[in-house]
Amino acid sequence: MNRRLAIALVHYPVLAKNGEVVTSALTNLDVHDLARSARTYGCTDYFIVHPILAQRTLATKIVSHWTHGSSAKRIPTRQEALSLVRPVHALDDAMSALAGAGNEQVTIWATAARDVGKTIDFCAARRAMGEPGGPILLVFGTGWGLGPSVIAGAHAVLAPIRGPGSWNHLSVRAACAIVLDRLCAA
Amino acid sequence: MNRRLAIALVHYPVLAKNGEVVTSALTNLDVHDLARSARTYGCTDYFIVHPILAQRTLATKIVSHWTHGSSAKRIPTRQEALSLVRPVHALDDAMSALAGAGNEQVTIWATAARDVGKTIDFCAARRAMGEPGGPILLVFGTGWGLGPSVIAGAHAVLAPIRGPGSWNHLSVRAACAIVLDRLCAA
Repeated sequence: MNRRLAIALVHYPVLAKNGEVVTSALTNLDVHDLARSARTYGCTDYFIVHPILAQRTLATKIVSHWTHGSSAKRIPTRQEALSLVRPVHALDDAMSALAGAGNEQVTIWATAARDVGKTIDFCAARRAMGEPGGPILLVFGTGWGLGPSVIAGAHAVLAPIRGPGSWNHLSVRAACAIVLDRLCAA
Repeated sequence: MNRRLAIALVHYPVLAKNGEVVTSALTNLDVHDLARSARTYGCTDYFIVHPILAQRTLATKIVSHWTHGSSAKRIPTRQEALSLVRPVHALDDAMSALAGAGNEQVTIWATAARDVGKTIDFCAARRAMGEPGGPILLVFGTGWGLGPSVIAGAHAVLAPIRGPGSWNHLSVRAACAIVLDRLCAA
């Protein structure tokens, strides 16, 4: 792949079970698992999007325990994964950081378990990743998925992951791993 | 796919960081995430292999909270996933359960992050799944991976998952999701 690839995990705006737009709480294993998947598949950054300062501080504390604290010595490989984590206030901050000093054009691909329109399939996505262009930001939602404003603001939405049947309530940890494997595996 | 497919998550014998064979503790999100991936990709059973009764009892308690307890009402889809969980004492018990009354021949495919020999690549594995035959059991390890006796007893070991580089310290939750997607996605 030629273009830089990064992931973002959104905690607001996301959907609750009843369809309301809510803020979700940080989950420790989301920090670890998505960082490990991001590192495996060559992502440059893993943005944890949370509007609440105390939750971003918690994310930073978890990361520093594994990058500078006692666990950094115990499991050095984990350090290489967690050093990709960037806690940010909102998705716009992730986009600005990724655009960088050169103000590159960032392409946003959202993800959803249901068909929400503007779909890009994985073949087309892989092709686009091999073409010249600015960085790509893959956006995942916690809770019951990304809020409508994130979907509306994305350039495209990756095709929902499906197994042989119609049941597809994967964890975000599983979904992110599968998406990165489909896009980046040799 | 024509053959029945099941997964097993082994807590003994698995490797510690120093290469010693140890027993690992049950992780709540392993119960959930692997069950959800198993359900998405049409697996018939998810065996949680643990030699300690108190840990199997804990697994059963987690499952029943989501299949019969208050959470079964709150998130009904989770019930369909967690009802696949079968806590067993040892991998042999998983094989016997899967062989069933007809005593079908069970094929064991182990998984490993390193190349440990007897490798079957994903193309060959998908082909084999489409041919007539008994059930297939995919075996995943916790900790630093499956103990040598499990690898030795398997019919084959699935090719290690790799991204563009050599770093591949995925979580077992991510690895299981990717393996099932590679084997079972349409």
